[in-house]
Amino acid sequence: MAIPASVFNPPFNIVRLSHIVLTVTDLKASRDFYVDTLGLQVTAEDDRRIYLRAMEERGHHCLVLERGDIAVAQELGFKVTDEEQLDRAKHYFEKLELPAKWTEVPYQGRTLRTRDPQGIPLEFYAKMDRLPAIHQQYKLYKGVRPLRIDHFNCFSPSVLDAVRFYNSIGFRVTEYTATEDTDELWAAWMHRKGGVHDIAFTNGSGPRLHHVAFWVPTPLSIIDLLDVMATTGYVANIERGPGRHGISNAFFLYIRDPDGHRVEIYCSDYQTIDPDHEPIRWGLKDPQRQTLWGAPAPRSWFEEGSVFANTPIRAADLQATPIIAP
Amino acid sequence: MAIPASVFNPPFNIVRLSHIVLTVTDLKASRDFYVDTLGLQVTAEDDRRIYLRAMEERGHHCLVLERGDIAVAQELGFKVTDEEQLDRAKHYFEKLELPAKWTEVPYQGRTLRTRDPQGIPLEFYAKMDRLPAIHQQYKLYKGVRPLRIDHFNCFSPSVLDAVRFYNSIGFRVTEYTATEDTDELWAAWMHRKGGVHDIAFTNGSGPRLHHVAFWVPTPLSIIDLLDVMATTGYVANIERGPGRHGISNAFFLYIRDPDGHRVEIYCSDYQTIDPDHEPIRWGLKDPQRQTLWGAPAPRSWFEEGSVFANTPIRAADLQATPIIAP
Amino acid sequence: MAIPASVFNPPFNIVRLSHIVLTVTDLKASRDFYVDTLGLQVTAEDDRRIYLRAMEERGHHCLVLERGDIAVAQELGFKVTDEEQLDRAKHYFEKLELPAKWTEVPYQGRTLRTRDPQGIPLEFYAKMDRLPAIHQQYKLYKGVRPLRIDHFNCFSPSVLDAVRFYNSIGFRVTEYTATEDTDELWAAWMHRKGGVHDIAFTNGSGPRLHHVAFWVPTPLSIIDLLDVMATTGYVANIERGPGRHGISNAFFLYIRDPDGHRVEIYCSDYQTIDPDHEPIRWGLKDPQRQTLWGAPAPRSWFEEGSVFANTPIRAADLQATPIIAP
Amino acid sequence: MAIPASVFNPPFNIVRLSHIVLTVTDLKASRDFYVDTLGLQVTAEDDRRIYLRAMEERGHHCLVLERGDIAVAQELGFKVTDEEQLDRAKHYFEKLELPAKWTEVPYQGRTLRTRDPQGIPLEFYAKMDRLPAIHQQYKLYKGVRPLRIDHFNCFSPSVLDAVRFYNSIGFRVTEYTATEDTDELWAAWMHRKGGVHDIAFTNGSGPRLHHVAFWVPTPLSIIDLLDVMATTGYVANIERGPGRHGISNAFFLYIRDPDGHRVEIYCSDYQTIDPDHEPIRWGLKDPQRQTLWGAPAPRSWFEEGSVFANTPIRAADLQATPIIAP
Repeated sequence: MAIPASVFNPPFNIVRLSHIVLTVTDLKASRDFYVDTLGLQVTAEDDRRIYLRAMEERGHHCLVLERGDIAVAQELGFKVTDEEQLDRAKHYFEKLELPAKWTEVPYQGRTLRTRDPQGIPLEFYAKMDRLPAIHQQYKLYKGVRPLRIDHFNCFSPSVLDAVRFYNSIGFRVTEYTATEDTDELWAAWMHRKGGVHDIAFTNGSGPRLHHVAFWVPTPLSIIDLLDVMATTGYVANIERGPGRHGISNAFFLYIRDPDGHRVEIYCSDYQTIDPDHEPIRWGLKDPQRQTLWGAPAPRSWFEEGSVFANTPIRAADLQATPIIAP
Repeated sequence: MAIPASVFNPPFNIVRLSHIVLTVTDLKASRDFYVDTLGLQVTAEDDRRIYLRAMEERGHHCLVLERGDIAVAQELGFKVTDEEQLDRAKHYFEKLELPAKWTEVPYQGRTLRTRDPQGIPLEFYAKMDRLPAIHQQYKLYKGVRPLRIDHFNCFSPSVLDAVRFYNSIGFRVTEYTATEDTDELWAAWMHRKGGVHDIAFTNGSGPRLHHVAFWVPTPLSIIDLLDVMATTGYVANIERGPGRHGISNAFFLYIRDPDGHRVEIYCSDYQTIDPDHEPIRWGLKDPQRQTLWGAPAPRSWFEEGSVFANTPIRAADLQATPIIAP
Repeated sequence: MAIPASVFNPPFNIVRLSHIVLTVTDLKASRDFYVDTLGLQVTAEDDRRIYLRAMEERGHHCLVLERGDIAVAQELGFKVTDEEQLDRAKHYFEKLELPAKWTEVPYQGRTLRTRDPQGIPLEFYAKMDRLPAIHQQYKLYKGVRPLRIDHFNCFSPSVLDAVRFYNSIGFRVTEYTATEDTDELWAAWMHRKGGVHDIAFTNGSGPRLHHVAFWVPTPLSIIDLLDVMATTGYVANIERGPGRHGISNAFFLYIRDPDGHRVEIYCSDYQTIDPDHEPIRWGLKDPQRQTLWGAPAPRSWFEEGSVFANTPIRAADLQATPIIAP
Repeated sequence: MAIPASVFNPPFNIVRLSHIVLTVTDLKASRDFYVDTLGLQVTAEDDRRIYLRAMEERGHHCLVLERGDIAVAQELGFKVTDEEQLDRAKHYFEKLELPAKWTEVPYQGRTLRTRDPQGIPLEFYAKMDRLPAIHQQYKLYKGVRPLRIDHFNCFSPSVLDAVRFYNSIGFRVTEYTATEDTDELWAAWMHRKGGVHDIAFTNGSGPRLHHVAFWVPTPLSIIDLLDVMATTGYVANIERGPGRHGISNAFFLYIRDPDGHRVEIYCSDYQTIDPDHEPIRWGLKDPQRQTLWGAPAPRSWFEEGSVFANTPIRAADLQATPIIAP
């Protein structure tokens, strides 16, 4: 897979994924899930929104829960290095005739709201309120001990188009799936921050959010969470795992929040910062790309996702079929 | 569930399960599996048999692999406290008109071969060659780091009869499954050594061996084994797991050896030595008894098992149906 | 080391160690330590006593904190198999002209209070209130996730005499330390329940309680506790570890409660139930018997311990000197 | 602590630390240590040099062992983004009148050898032979399961000068120690790759290499290594740990190779890529900066280090005294 020059010389400089806003229908139920069960820390809350951060994060929020009538995903947030990059970003999206406007966002500095060409709502900022470090306040650790937001994963009707666009703004592919026969791109993992991904795309009607992922210390944190969820009324919210992904090599668990938004708990991928880091190719028919240990994913995992607010969905270009649990 | 007096005052005193002999069709392939992959230690071998022990065991063998034309399970071995108990055992089985004869068994002292009423071949001994401790020779630890044999699990055509017999020789039920409506016994876990079980019985055509289990240090040992098996040609031998059993509370993995004999890797059950330790009852329709985290077991796990050598099989008494993966 | 016949045919049948009563000077401070920090569960409390159990225990208490003016250790509690054993025990201690009387103890059935020949106060009972199982209520797990009481460890002025007495009531030595030159017994680990020990004795002025130990799931539980203690004002209460004992092979941590009572957090010893299980001998000059990894224990660990209530102390018979951290 | 502009706009672009060359006096003994005990993978070897990589690395080497008469540290290697950065680097060092010359280095492209102002020999390159990924060949994992080189740590006679220089070439301070009273810089941790550090400096006569560190999956990998080292003749090579650093929050172990070169085994620090990531300040008298759990480091850890080849040493500017184990 060729790496375009834009990856190393992007039009504006994104540091990393930063946060996501999820619309939820029952703020109390979501708080029970994300705070009491997963262990994210509340940094601010009122009767409309709850702001959360993970244990090693010093930015104000990595997840914002917003009360609404319909459960949807809103903007995917990214941090850029400085204010100048924001202006460059605005210019870049405008040049592509994509919507781009400054928005007031609580706890964030100047914020650009826009959409990628497939319609995913995006948010860029350079400054967010910084909070005191809590990573050594071990008394606060609970649930799955979430350390930081790790990545977004989206269904995309054309993964090839998505990769081309995100390549153009500096994201690099670390691993990807292609059909064995026709060599068509089925899925791709793309990074800015030096791990396997900040964002990934999988072929499917979309755009839709497949999941947001949080990084945790060890597989034992995930086992602890499973034990707690299984015995506190959340057994039906456990969708897939635990297991080891072939792609990314991560130890994973997929769970669903009370509105069905999917969350991945994730640990142990690898460093990808070398400019000559080679992407890894997987065949679509190789079941170990999904689960190294061989167990297929359930149908829901392949088909269900969160709609983005006010975002039309179109059918996927490719119709190949991955291996699904019978 | 009433506990008969024989549990506390048995006709002969069994210490614990001790070992199993498995007939395998390819000794080399079995050695690759049990020694190189699982990490059991070879204590003796010739071109017909391989003797294995786990890392904290000082007895000569917990598993004997014997070359044969058909893969079957042979005697389940139990250790009794002293030679007098062996004589008592022989008398007990003879009184029941079950076969009972002294046999020469390498590396063991006087050995009694017999069968339980449902036909399972059993072997009792008081003395086995003792070997130097290797539990602190950490250089030898590999694979899943097996520490000791933990239990046998068998399909039984009448679990109720099996429980009555094993009660009569001192085994106590720690957990069991019964049908919700008719309160019929579906499965039972029975111990001598102070954990959840030395032997368990599940309703099914039998007797057949469902699995033999080995105790390992932590869930991470099991994750390590999965990673190795998945990348050394054993991915199809991973049958079920990893997961947490509701029953026994153990973290588990089920794998199949090259002949299809099932092995459980197991850790973290609990102490059951109090004479007034209360058995735990589970309903047959409760999927969490099988997997606390909700994922059902595959059909093979419910249906397949190893035949015992020269042992007729009969259909199960009960025909209720547990939850099986779709 | 010869094993006396009494080990296999004791005058009364002890199941296991059961509980300890510690007098503490500030019940609130002790509650913060044992409940909020270690994670033991409160089963009853009033303004004078707090009763605690660990996560897999179904007996009412394994630790009783009792408010008093001076921090001392009180009775070491042991469970016997049935009421008849209690009568036999009373008879046995009376025959030795040791104090032995029935006492009313809350939440326990008929309870025998006595002392061993060196003066350690002991308590025997057959029945204690049984509580519902909570080992699968994972929401309750916190702190170091204590699963069960594991053992007592005492300074003894004559370890040889202590071993002889506990041998006589059915305890068996699993590991011991002897002086290299004169082959005098320095320390011994003795069990009833099938692990490395229910009680251990080390040469020192005494009798005094060296520590009470709790079993936890994995070394990571201990690391979690260290992180919490280090950041909640308990850093000075961390006395020794984490480390691996040569003796017992356990992963350990020693901490001190607010009154200075020493608690060991312990996991991963091994099964010792075989009647022919061979004791392991260690030389007094071998530093790896204390810490397999080589780091010596601090002086406080060798010298300090809890006095038993109303119990005279005498100097140790042996004067050899173990290796102490410089 | 002010962050100079050069951190974000360096004269040449360093990706990360890459490798180190250590001169060892017995290549066989060093191979036993680094390959058989630690588990690094040999990528090339002859009778003069052994090239090693860790499990997730695709570059040819992170450690080169070179046979020599005296055990010394040689160049610290860094990877730059592309060939142009190498030319810029050469220009930059020449401008400072530091030695800078192109060198042929096996398995590397064009390589610049130079020294920093305090005399530490450095090596920069853009291209190194890339090798096939082995991070999913789990059969190869052994020892401490090293995943990647993590950082260098050096004694510096003037940490303030060292920080100024490394700031000037793009390294940013994440944590530092300063004297409480005079606010003098005692130690600093500086990164390029997004973790707590690629290189750190501590006040001491120097320059000398304090240690090179490798990243491992979990604290249990470190416990496994300790068990193996303790029982294979390496107990005296265990210098400090395991423990949790206050600074960096990492779980650590320090060991010495057969020549006394110090190696740190390290896991679980945190992400530092935000441009506005705030450095954390620690006071020199705070013992928890060294070990969160309170145990002081031994004297050898504070005093001993590897001399760099052909590099004069001078006394440290500061004479404050940290807390040392008594």
